[in-house]
Amino acid sequence: MATAINVDVKATKAAIGENDIDALAAQAASAVEKLEKGTGEGSGFLGWLHLPSSITPARLDEIEAVAAHMRHHCDYVVAIGIGGSYLGAKAVIEALSSSFSAYSRDGGTRVLFAGNNIGEDYMHDLMELLRGRRFGIVVISKSGTTTEPAIAFRLLKDLLESQVGKAEAAKLIVAITDSSRGALRHLADKEGYKTFVIPDNVGGRYSVLTPVGLLPVAIAGHDIKALVAGAVEMEQAPDDAARLYAQTRNALYRAGKKIEILVNFCPRLHYLAEWWKQLYGESEGKGHKALFPAAVDDTTDLHSMGQWIQDGERTIFETVISVGAQQHTVVIPHDDADLDGLNYLAGKRIDEVNKMAELGTRIAHVDGGVPNIVISVPEVTERYLGQLIYFFEKACGISGYLLGVNPFDQPGVEGYKRNMFALLNKPGYEAQSAAMKAKLHK
Amino acid sequence: MATAINVDVKATKAAIGENDIDALAAQAASAVEKLEKGTGEGSGFLGWLHLPSSITPARLDEIEAVAAHMRHHCDYVVAIGIGGSYLGAKAVIEALSSSFSAYSRDGGTRVLFAGNNIGEDYMHDLMELLRGRRFGIVVISKSGTTTEPAIAFRLLKDLLESQVGKAEAAKLIVAITDSSRGALRHLADKEGYKTFVIPDNVGGRYSVLTPVGLLPVAIAGHDIKALVAGAVEMEQAPDDAARLYAQTRNALYRAGKKIEILVNFCPRLHYLAEWWKQLYGESEGKGHKALFPAAVDDTTDLHSMGQWIQDGERTIFETVISVGAQQHTVVIPHDDADLDGLNYLAGKRIDEVNKMAELGTRIAHVDGGVPNIVISVPEVTERYLGQLIYFFEKACGISGYLLGVNPFDQPGVEGYKRNMFALLNKPGYEAQSAAMKAKLHK
Repeated sequence: MATAINVDVKATKAAIGENDIDALAAQAASAVEKLEKGTGEGSGFLGWLHLPSSITPARLDEIEAVAAHMRHHCDYVVAIGIGGSYLGAKAVIEALSSSFSAYSRDGGTRVLFAGNNIGEDYMHDLMELLRGRRFGIVVISKSGTTTEPAIAFRLLKDLLESQVGKAEAAKLIVAITDSSRGALRHLADKEGYKTFVIPDNVGGRYSVLTPVGLLPVAIAGHDIKALVAGAVEMEQAPDDAARLYAQTRNALYRAGKKIEILVNFCPRLHYLAEWWKQLYGESEGKGHKALFPAAVDDTTDLHSMGQWIQDGERTIFETVISVGAQQHTVVIPHDDADLDGLNYLAGKRIDEVNKMAELGTRIAHVDGGVPNIVISVPEVTERYLGQLIYFFEKACGISGYLLGVNPFDQPGVEGYKRNMFALLNKPGYEAQSAAMKAKLHK
Repeated sequence: MATAINVDVKATKAAIGENDIDALAAQAASAVEKLEKGTGEGSGFLGWLHLPSSITPARLDEIEAVAAHMRHHCDYVVAIGIGGSYLGAKAVIEALSSSFSAYSRDGGTRVLFAGNNIGEDYMHDLMELLRGRRFGIVVISKSGTTTEPAIAFRLLKDLLESQVGKAEAAKLIVAITDSSRGALRHLADKEGYKTFVIPDNVGGRYSVLTPVGLLPVAIAGHDIKALVAGAVEMEQAPDDAARLYAQTRNALYRAGKKIEILVNFCPRLHYLAEWWKQLYGESEGKGHKALFPAAVDDTTDLHSMGQWIQDGERTIFETVISVGAQQHTVVIPHDDADLDGLNYLAGKRIDEVNKMAELGTRIAHVDGGVPNIVISVPEVTERYLGQLIYFFEKACGISGYLLGVNPFDQPGVEGYKRNMFALLNKPGYEAQSAAMKAKLHK
């Protein structure tokens, strides 16, 4: 089945040739084989590979029913999670929502996020907002003991129980956690929370198409069946596009490019880029190598990072997510006085101008020595987001194997946690504290 | 006068020595002299240098009076501008506001931003929000013909005039523009808009302490007198901190570091980092050199970019904005069951945990080969933000001269505009269009 995601690498020619990309074809084929057969590193975390097609209609119905329950009873639902338990849902919801939905008068349940930082003011501000309001909680944690979400959940659970009582609160809390083990599973079973399972073989950054991402997206009112259907289309299509992207970015890295900038000209895609940064940064940033993933929202950032991109060190390339069509129509009006000189655009849609800004930028940057990959998507809908998500996931697995790392672990994320526990004198870590505090100052 | 901003570079020792930093002291002194005497490149744009102390109480009163007028008559004020005419105000407002202010029930005028992109859905969403509501406009443009703000202003001016009539609309529009020339000045004089002047000798990325930044900040309800007072304190203090930061980051660049990551552990500072990226990226990214400015919000991004920072290419360093105190207090509650194992933190403020996460992260990253600069600020208030803003501005001027570029121009930003105009057949650009479109595909 054909999909609608297209990858164009023609504008990388100044840095690499077709030969450089083709030279990685055999390795990419081998990487795909490793994924399919589970013979590569990290093979315990390949659950995402055939996840979309394994989601049953009954499971989607169940998620939608829980979402409907939460929407009915809550004006706000706080999704508590960090990393992949935050970014996937955030990316999809933002991509599909009005840029000003937070200010909207139209009601509808709003999904907020917590447990993704340790900001005291942030928690204060959130609790101020929720005090006296109808809210619910989706708490996402494999173990239930990860510091950030655990703190947020303690506080919000207390607030909710104080507002509606323990019995009612239990009906407004959904836990997404391990199938059998861990503190959150234990608590959920004890309190009778509705639960969904985080599969053992799907890592956080690959979890957006599990209930971790799907439930918050459904609560925000978006069509998770279309999202999953799009991902299934990409899963079952030939993976030429994913291979081409993986080969090209690795060829550029081997040719000396150090930073990949994901570019959008569509403000709603800001968090999709944040999701992409996690996916690629955490999958590849190991062994003192890998492209540094960065992102810009244009044309906004053409007036910020644009100067650097045009004329800084020539060690970057750009990957542009090019969106075909907008969801709404706004035409630039005529003005008799034309003091601003914009009448040459009168009658055009804003997006026609944006398209020329996008093309003009690509040409300017390529001319300035910045290779350019274009990933085209017809429009930002559930279906195409599903395709795009699976495309990036598959390409990431291939790319990590091309780079020669295990794309499915994240050993470096433990470092700060261990130090933090020692500094906080967590039971078991006391002895290390003083020695560590001295380190920065010796 | 002493200020409260402290720069600590002790944790850069693995990459550079004190000698490397001291070796740049004479050049930094020379850079400061160039700034003071106006003998360096870009000396036509040094108006920011003694800007804070030149702002009269009467001017601040005037800005506050206009802000009060807008607050009285508007539930929303749209600040229309791009680049420095957007990021400065956005950074200050976000730093001083509740993280959930958009959802707040408490009224108060909200400042929204437009004209900083060419998103058709974005403009649609904004106009949907404003339809039928009490809103006003602050339009910021030196020329009045910059494409992004000009399109937004045409549309929002039409909407406002259709809702309240042309005469009333004129009382709800403030123009910040050139003192005498340009389309927006012409229009403002014709329509009788209240105006403020963008000084000729202050570039966009240095404009936050002009009316460009101060008026939106005042409309959002923040204390611009304290903001300016903080900046005056930093302007009049010895510039040791700014020199040290400029020397250290240049020494790290000369030692092979390529990416500077600005780190915060305080979610409200996200846009301050965006402002910093513009300031440094646009000032320094020239002549195929300069540090690539990136930013992370921790601990959120420890679960995203954290793996790469801990173990990717060892060509990065981090600059941490370390905030002393939060504005609000939230204590972690005790829980009898302690299933989540958090009782060892019960009774502590959330910020105590965050501080240990910050310190633990710094130690983990330094141990992993990532040099670390710490910029300490007592708390995020108007006064300290004023100090921090001027600190970064001064350090940027010094740093650019150390790097050997003109820190006050941005020639690379014109590239996409020229191409866009050609592709849009703007009068004067028609002939170049077809040739350009062919470029990417040949």
